[in-house]
Parts: sequence; C-alpha cells; structure tokens
Amino acid sequence: MYVICSDLEGVFVPEIWINVSKQTGIEELKLTTRDISDYDVLMKRRLELLHQHKLTLHDVQGVISRLKPLPGAIEFVDWVRSSAQLIVVSDTFREFADPLMKQLGRPTLLCHHLTTDAQGNITNYNLRQKDGKRKVVESLQSLNYKVIAIGDSYNDLMMLRKAEHGILFNPPQNVIDENKDLRVVNSYDALREIIAKLLDEEQ
Amino acid sequence: MYVICSDLEGVFVPEIWINVSKQTGIEELKLTTRDISDYDVLMKRRLELLHQHKLTLHDVQGVISRLKPLPGAIEFVDWVRSSAQLIVVSDTFREFADPLMKQLGRPTLLCHHLTTDAQGNITNYNLRQKDGKRKVVESLQSLNYKVIAIGDSYNDLMMLRKAEHGILFNPPQNVIDENKDLRVVNSYDALREIIAKLLDEEQ
Repeated sequence: MYVICSDLEGVFVPEIWINVSKQTGIEELKLTTRDISDYDVLMKRRLELLHQHKLTLHDVQGVISRLKPLPGAIEFVDWVRSSAQLIVVSDTFREFADPLMKQLGRPTLLCHHLTTDAQGNITNYNLRQKDGKRKVVESLQSLNYKVIAIGDSYNDLMMLRKAEHGILFNPPQNVIDENKDLRVVNSYDALREIIAKLLDEEQ
Repeated sequence: MYVICSDLEGVFVPEIWINVSKQTGIEELKLTTRDISDYDVLMKRRLELLHQHKLTLHDVQGVISRLKPLPGAIEFVDWVRSSAQLIVVSDTFREFADPLMKQLGRPTLLCHHLTTDAQGNITNYNLRQKDGKRKVVESLQSLNYKVIAIGDSYNDLMMLRKAEHGILFNPPQNVIDENKDLRVVNSYDALREIIAKLLDEEQ
C-alpha cells in the first residue's frame, strides 16, 4: 500500500515567511529553503530578524491567519485523502501551521515546534530530528508502506529520493536544473494523474 | 511532541464484524479479537464463513455503509485533531473502513487490505506486518514523538504498553481483569481530560 508524503509550503499553502516579509516589510525574511539550503542558518537568521523588529509569535500568527491554501489545494487534498493516506511532512512549526491545516481539513502533519518566552517572543526553534523528512519515509517503509513523496525545494530532496516515487511540484528553476533525475509537475491535475496511475497499478 | 495512536473499532466506530453478524444472521461472525486473541485464526474463520454463505466484499461493504461512528466520536476526533496529531491504527481493512473514516473526517488510518477475485469474493487478507500496532508506535518514537495510545482489546495491548501512555477505552471485563496495570476510561470526556492534561504538561 502507498502512503503519500507531501511538503506543505509551496505545495498546498503559500510560503509563510515570504508572506510575513511582505506584510512586515522586512525584506530579508523573504529568503526560504529555496534560497539558503542550510535550514539551521536560515532559521537562526529569521529569529534574529524577528527579535530585532520586536515581532512576537502572536504577530507572526496574525499574518498566517490571513493566508489561504493555494487555489485548488483543498480539492486536491480531499481527493488524495479519499484515495490513499496522506501525511504532510514539513519544516514549518506547529504554532504556525495550525490555521492553514484547519483549512485543509487537518491531514496529519509531522513538523517542528517553537519555544517562546512569557512575553510571546520566539526564543528558539526545535527541530524534531535531523533529516526529519527522509526519516519519515524510512519509517513508513519499515511499516511496509511504499511512499509517493511530493515537494518543491532543497529540504525535500532526500525525502523525494528515499521514496519509491519522488515528484517535484512547481519547483523553482534552480531546483529543476540541479535535480534533472526527478519528475517535475506544475499542476494538481498532473499530480493527480500520476498518483491515480500508481494507485491503480497497485490494485 | 505527542502523537495520539488510536484503535478504530470499539473506540470510534462499532465493531464491524458484530454488525455484519447481526445483519446476515451468521452468529459465528460475532466473534472479535475480544474473544479470540489470535487474529490469524479469527480472520481465517471469518473468510471461511463469508465463503460458505456466498457473501462478497460488496455485501459486507453494504452493511458497513449503514454504520455510524459511536455517539460523540466525531466531536472527540475533531477535538483531538485540533490539539495534536491523530493516527488511527487498526486491524481492519481499507476496503471496510472507508465509509466510516469519511464520517470521522478522514484522520490518517494505518491498517490492512484484502484480496478479492473477479467476482468480488474475498479470497485472502493481507496483514501489513506482524505486530503492526506496536511497530507504528516504535516508528513514531524513532521520529522523536511521544505516543499516547488508545485501544479496547487484546490486539491493542502491545501498542498500549509500547506507548509512553497507554489507555484502555471501554474495554470488556476480561481485558480489564487481565491487564490491571493499564489505565481504563469509559467516556470521551474522561479520555479528553487525560489527553489535555498530558499535552498541557508538555508545554
């Protein structure tokens, strides 16, 4: 049996930090794992910027609560979940993701979490584990599942390569150019077609 | 972070085979893992009985499509999923579970699957793996999650004992008597209280 493991931002919902950047006017918050592949370097810089600009978790949550899933994402997620099991595997934080996951009908989300102080300042971030996305795939394989993995950026590559089938969804050109072995799709219809075919072949 | 692993039948939905027994009048189909602890012995007997009575997968699905989740289960599942990640870990089959999972809002379900022939007869059952419930808990622990596990019968015991917190929900007296070390609750309110406390303590 297949389990579908999918990234969240860029696949089902907009990039959270890009939107925080837009609404706060802090240009540098725009950088994502698409630009800086070392997630630790990226996150430390983000928290530093929030601190400099005196933005609390509550402020960031305020921005996120106004975001919507990408057009067609809710329908696609509904379809996937009626056909197979879906697990969203993300490098976001549970404190950020919740309003978006609610709009998606709460598929299972495996991700990280934040530490805040009494004033609501984000003082640290807690990665669930190193190489967390790849390990989720390995873990499902140890439970005798086959995995179809979907992602759009650097932090998804190991998950995509570990899965039986890895698919890049709407990735930026640099990710395409550097990973020519991975299949690329640019619409939910194309994704649905690939997944439906794989599930059918398994029957 | 905690993940909640819960059994399905007897916890969120009625026992499927008991209901198939009632509606088909085949008395012996009433037996569950509450009565026969060896799941393989139990399943082989069930398939034999379906075959003897010429009941196809379609017939069994007809019975299941008329079942509803237990009173309060939908609300409880909604609450759990707004508070933590929920994974339903069941010894049912995806072909049986679907209409019930849909009513529960499709939480992730890890379970088994059936083999049918061209005429729709159930010719075999495929266990995902041996000790599948326990292995799901171990697998989540390997991803740095702590697990709160909920179940009601023999096939849940290893999952409950492997989890950081194992809770028997509305179990039959023989299961209570033989497992006096496990916490027993009999309502969703009591379950919610325990889970909320564990999640709070973690903050």
